[in-house]
Amino acid sequence: MLIAPSEFLAARLARLQASLDEHQLDALVVTSLPNIAYLTGFFASSAVLIVTKDRLDLIGDGRYADVLAHRAADSPMVRPLVIEQSSSYDETLVGVLASLAGLRTGFEASHMSVQRHRSVTARLVAIDGWSAGLVETDGLIEQLRLRKDAWEVERLRDGALRLSSVAKGILPKALAGRTESDVAAELEWELRRVGFDRPAFDTIVASGPNAAVPHARASSRRIEAGELVVIDFGGMLDGYCTDLTRTAVAGAAGERERQLLERVAEAELAAFETLRPGSQPEAADYAARQTLARYDLDRAFTHGTGHGLGLEVHEGPRVTRARADRVEPPLAPGVVMTLEPGVYFPGWGGVRIEDDVLVTEVGAEWLTDVPRMW
Amino acid sequence: MLIAPSEFLAARLARLQASLDEHQLDALVVTSLPNIAYLTGFFASSAVLIVTKDRLDLIGDGRYADVLAHRAADSPMVRPLVIEQSSSYDETLVGVLASLAGLRTGFEASHMSVQRHRSVTARLVAIDGWSAGLVETDGLIEQLRLRKDAWEVERLRDGALRLSSVAKGILPKALAGRTESDVAAELEWELRRVGFDRPAFDTIVASGPNAAVPHARASSRRIEAGELVVIDFGGMLDGYCTDLTRTAVAGAAGERERQLLERVAEAELAAFETLRPGSQPEAADYAARQTLARYDLDRAFTHGTGHGLGLEVHEGPRVTRARADRVEPPLAPGVVMTLEPGVYFPGWGGVRIEDDVLVTEVGAEWLTDVPRMW
Repeated sequence: MLIAPSEFLAARLARLQASLDEHQLDALVVTSLPNIAYLTGFFASSAVLIVTKDRLDLIGDGRYADVLAHRAADSPMVRPLVIEQSSSYDETLVGVLASLAGLRTGFEASHMSVQRHRSVTARLVAIDGWSAGLVETDGLIEQLRLRKDAWEVERLRDGALRLSSVAKGILPKALAGRTESDVAAELEWELRRVGFDRPAFDTIVASGPNAAVPHARASSRRIEAGELVVIDFGGMLDGYCTDLTRTAVAGAAGERERQLLERVAEAELAAFETLRPGSQPEAADYAARQTLARYDLDRAFTHGTGHGLGLEVHEGPRVTRARADRVEPPLAPGVVMTLEPGVYFPGWGGVRIEDDVLVTEVGAEWLTDVPRMW
Repeated sequence: MLIAPSEFLAARLARLQASLDEHQLDALVVTSLPNIAYLTGFFASSAVLIVTKDRLDLIGDGRYADVLAHRAADSPMVRPLVIEQSSSYDETLVGVLASLAGLRTGFEASHMSVQRHRSVTARLVAIDGWSAGLVETDGLIEQLRLRKDAWEVERLRDGALRLSSVAKGILPKALAGRTESDVAAELEWELRRVGFDRPAFDTIVASGPNAAVPHARASSRRIEAGELVVIDFGGMLDGYCTDLTRTAVAGAAGERERQLLERVAEAELAAFETLRPGSQPEAADYAARQTLARYDLDRAFTHGTGHGLGLEVHEGPRVTRARADRVEPPLAPGVVMTLEPGVYFPGWGGVRIEDDVLVTEVGAEWLTDVPRMW
């Protein structure tokens, strides 16, 4: 697994320090695992990080002792803390916090349970200088993660090309007669073959009426000739997620199927053309929706147009309808996201087309590269 | 996907009602997705459930409108609430809670973020009769999930047998020369072929020195003849997880490898023999550890002996060292768990053997069925 070089980690941390200064915080307890991976290159199924001006206290358990030591060797700021057998994450965290008494320390309110917050706070009150408790923060690191750095863009570009190579191998004519689940198994095999560590999410192969169900996965249903087949899959490579959808017609496409594919592709292109630094993600959604409305298909488009991609398969920005109570930050170079308009007709079928795109200095660039129609 | 018949769901709910009575609660907000699936048969990537005496208010978003309607048709107590496009989970939840003013309503403190708790509480204070706020609860439903009902036992038994059939297909002699990742891809293909919806967790194929690393996954490393290969994999079927480990020797086993396999298998058997209603999970861990200590291998056993299995691949009970500050409930019929002792020698290799077991009225029963040595 490739880990971001230490100069990239240092730059991410510098951006976080600026954000902490802006929020008048001296320290931050990080409990979101993707956020910890972003700042330290430590990918684990459990971890806690405490960020201060001059140190990253990185708490992990015994299983990860070797990786923690490596991370510390790479980054002089990282102090690895392996939890003792008789101790716990919370106890170890409180041990670090005790040494930060008097500092204004934030925590990630969306990534700490009420239970953990109570347990940590109860231990802290016994410590001099901790009467103020932890300060609630929201999305400080997620905001930094919106703009991918050059190293991340390369991971996502590489992943998108590998994913495209798998998608190009799908032979629509050969789909009829196979089960959805068999096609999904083959795609996942191919994901491994081209180097992905694992699927980024449950592979969707949804045929016929299943193609009308946005939450479909891959069932034992046998695909019939002439049916639409929504194939939505993704891979995780070096911790980064890519995500692609094509809708195949099993065998020869009928007129209605061909027309829907063309119109959804047109909507995707309209969304793409809005993308540039300073534009709103909501504008991309609006463009896709208006295009479909011209064909009276907007009511069949029942979800948002896209989502950010990175360490998580769904992250910022939201590419959805404009809402008065929630405005997304304007796009900026380095934002990576999906565009995935779709139309669904319950009982009959559906079409979705999805690509990954990068916002550049002057506009945007497709990261995935697969014909939209066969 | 098979969903538990409504009489089983009703029985689970009756047990929860008894627990709520015991805790003097009139209602409970459930935010853990596996807990929601357990009570309602609704498997989704987001949902909120409000349990009251006579109703299950089940909140989901537009993607799941059809499934929510099905769940309501199956269970007369379920009232499906599909979130409006301009609304949110929290807003819809508060809408339900408003109608419960004056009731003593709990929430799952381990499964609600500080952010959501604050957001919901802030909206509630504006509502008459809600001055008391929500009451913190911990593990009420997880406690019920410890003992699987007959329907769950059948799902786990079925899964364990299918998983065993895949494991029996591994040909140790043919491992040498293949990459770990290639073997993992084949196992995952076979999981699909025997009917699993997906792997229950990232498949581990760890060869040679990688076998000494408990957090190893499957790399591009090529397996060499005579090496130990830890193969730890699982499948999810109808929402239930099974989990199995075998350690193969690629080609002919050397004396040290054979001896380690025998001793770890002996430790697993010693753990199994402690299992019966009323015994402590910690006793199983102790038995495994003592067996390995007789061969001076206990320091090489660096993790716990097992964990519960069910809707989650790691759930209660914990099968670990006894701790003064945390005692597990005694075993009872219906508990399903893994036993997975292992020994690890950094730089050289390791051995782990893992099976799934069911605690019965009189003792315990193996659910997986694969030879421990080839």
